[in-house]
Amino acid sequence: MSVQAARGTRDLLPEAMHRRLHVIARIREVFQRFGFEPLETPAIERIETLMGKYGDEGEKLIFRILERGEGGREGKADLALRYDLTVPLARVMAMNAGTPLPFKRYQVQPVWRADRPQKGRFREFYQCDADIVGSRSRVADAECIAIADVAIAALGFERFEVRVNHRALLRAIVAAAGAPEREGEVLVAIDKLDKIGREGVTNELLGRGLDAGVVERLWAILAEPASLDAVAAAAGEAATAPAEELREVLANARALGASHVVFDATLARGLGYYTGPVFEAVLTDGGVGSVSGGGRYDGLIGMFSGRDVPAVGVSLGLERLLTVMEERGMLEGAGTRTRALVTIFSADLAQDALTTARELRAAGIDTEAWLGEPGSLGKQFKYAAGKRIPFAIVRGPSEVEAGTANVKDLRSGEQRVVAVADIAGVLEG
Amino acid sequence: MSVQAARGTRDLLPEAMHRRLHVIARIREVFQRFGFEPLETPAIERIETLMGKYGDEGEKLIFRILERGEGGREGKADLALRYDLTVPLARVMAMNAGTPLPFKRYQVQPVWRADRPQKGRFREFYQCDADIVGSRSRVADAECIAIADVAIAALGFERFEVRVNHRALLRAIVAAAGAPEREGEVLVAIDKLDKIGREGVTNELLGRGLDAGVVERLWAILAEPASLDAVAAAAGEAATAPAEELREVLANARALGASHVVFDATLARGLGYYTGPVFEAVLTDGGVGSVSGGGRYDGLIGMFSGRDVPAVGVSLGLERLLTVMEERGMLEGAGTRTRALVTIFSADLAQDALTTARELRAAGIDTEAWLGEPGSLGKQFKYAAGKRIPFAIVRGPSEVEAGTANVKDLRSGEQRVVAVADIAGVLEG
Repeated sequence: MSVQAARGTRDLLPEAMHRRLHVIARIREVFQRFGFEPLETPAIERIETLMGKYGDEGEKLIFRILERGEGGREGKADLALRYDLTVPLARVMAMNAGTPLPFKRYQVQPVWRADRPQKGRFREFYQCDADIVGSRSRVADAECIAIADVAIAALGFERFEVRVNHRALLRAIVAAAGAPEREGEVLVAIDKLDKIGREGVTNELLGRGLDAGVVERLWAILAEPASLDAVAAAAGEAATAPAEELREVLANARALGASHVVFDATLARGLGYYTGPVFEAVLTDGGVGSVSGGGRYDGLIGMFSGRDVPAVGVSLGLERLLTVMEERGMLEGAGTRTRALVTIFSADLAQDALTTARELRAAGIDTEAWLGEPGSLGKQFKYAAGKRIPFAIVRGPSEVEAGTANVKDLRSGEQRVVAVADIAGVLEG
Repeated sequence: MSVQAARGTRDLLPEAMHRRLHVIARIREVFQRFGFEPLETPAIERIETLMGKYGDEGEKLIFRILERGEGGREGKADLALRYDLTVPLARVMAMNAGTPLPFKRYQVQPVWRADRPQKGRFREFYQCDADIVGSRSRVADAECIAIADVAIAALGFERFEVRVNHRALLRAIVAAAGAPEREGEVLVAIDKLDKIGREGVTNELLGRGLDAGVVERLWAILAEPASLDAVAAAAGEAATAPAEELREVLANARALGASHVVFDATLARGLGYYTGPVFEAVLTDGGVGSVSGGGRYDGLIGMFSGRDVPAVGVSLGLERLLTVMEERGMLEGAGTRTRALVTIFSADLAQDALTTARELRAAGIDTEAWLGEPGSLGKQFKYAAGKRIPFAIVRGPSEVEAGTANVKDLRSGEQRVVAVADIAGVLEG
């Protein structure tokens, strides 16, 4: 009988879960430090809530669920699995019109996409978003940027940049180069700069039929080093306001502790819905690329309510961060929390062992009690060592009589005899 | 435009989430204290993994998902949403045959059932299970019982019982009463004892055509007080072994800190798959009924592998516990963790305010920065009070010059001027 998980899904076994819980806890802590509140939405949404929101390509990836009719018969496929965390947020805001604004929520939940499964790419994966709804303040943009910066640093990364740009500045640049009507195509090409370099982008733009003069002017405006002042000056009057806004956002982000922010005039961010400052956090070693991104998207949250609702958000690439941290050995410490196995020396001493386990647990120590046949300490030590439990506690007849325990450090093999009341202290030490 | 969540689902807004996270954290802590490790399985399972596992009534409630074929077209409905956490555990064990046993895992995840939605009953809800796979030890049964006991106490409940029985003892009782072939029906009726009383059960048994003599002998065996010794003696030889086992399990559970356990000869537990000791935790005030249950089910985990795999588990009724704790005001403290709003006195002092926010966050204090228009402190205080943030920090020109801050306690209205370096201490105090 072939037993399998569904195609493109995976189980998160304890070792993977410990690492994941560690990373989520660190990120959640940063979200809460910035005053964001938790939100969860159901996995299941009405199909009409999701349709028309993700473009044709996205829509094909939405998993549809069959509604159950009377008597359990299958009805229409008018339910679907959540595709991201942003459309559900927009729905929540529309359904809770009285929510005091700004509403700052974070959400760490899986989403589902019916992608063709590939190595390292799953059909069910976590997203990890924080968004501020209802504020046009430049402090709000700065907070999202600072969260990316502070969270990535909190996870232990040192070499990274948070690259920041402004959609309206990009628009001004393309217009100043002389191709305002080709903005979308130019941005798609510029987005590939990291991968294919300036020559590659030039070839793509010329291949798309852009005028050589336009391309030349584009690179002139983006001449290295493309400082904000230089680019704004070269891009003309339409660049003045976004450049001014960006200066303030960058200063705010730095005041909030973002120490890795840089201006990047070529940062486009693929998603069409951004309307203001955009950013992307990139690990600058190891060729990993983007591990976080976000920006202002003032047009999206109001889509259900028909009202104008400004919003800005940050998304941490949890799955990619986890993969990189695992590859780099940054999560070695995130294993089992269990500190001790209380062995069972013999059947008649079982309840004595269980009492010891109870006392350790009451002292706040995560403790296993042996669940196999009593006796054979070697087998019990082997089990504990296999699970990377650091200590084994042994209480044979002489220890029970003396009110002591033999505490064995399974990593060093060292053994100590200690009073029962002192075991917890030894395990913590 | 009518915007709705899918029928039978709900959003967990921040206040509800804080309460839920609080309760899950307490339960998770108990699971880990007992040496259980976290596991997550995907929401999506292959339909054949779930079919034939939940009986006809259960099967009707499985949500089917359409697989996506080439080009995004809908394919067959051969995927489904997880219905519980036990069948996925069995699949995980079959797919990971080399896992060292015993395997102790806990799992806190939503499940989906296409029930007709009712008040307080949702189609997506959390289950909260801990199971021990691969141990026949009576310590394993005792640990599951102790977890229910310790977890319910840790949540703040005082009046509850953990009622324990043994499937084989019940079988012996029914056989001794003279109706071994009607065991299933008798257990179904006895299961209702709490609700309909002895007279109700008697009527149901007679209505099902059971002999009056059988019913009479049944009540004689279960004569109050139905102590384990008395019931075992009255139920004949077949009761000896399970009674002996139960005595040991109860003693073990008490040694492990379970101080609310009682023997209950009438506890049947509906689910057909239990094979040994069974238990149920019941709040004894307020008519709430069962908030946790579990038992040994040696036949289930091996269903995919064809091997014989003993297992025992405990399930906490998270949704019911939450409802009761909310009703009883046991979760009043579980609100926002944000301690302070840093106000923005005027636009030119914004970055100064953000620096203060950064310093508080670095000191470990969850802090919001004001995201509206600068100025109007009254509006800023009102926003913070509305979110139950206890403190507001004000730094106007004179405070900035003096290196101080005005710390306003929004609950009492009291204000204090403190040095910037001392703000964190005041907020923590």
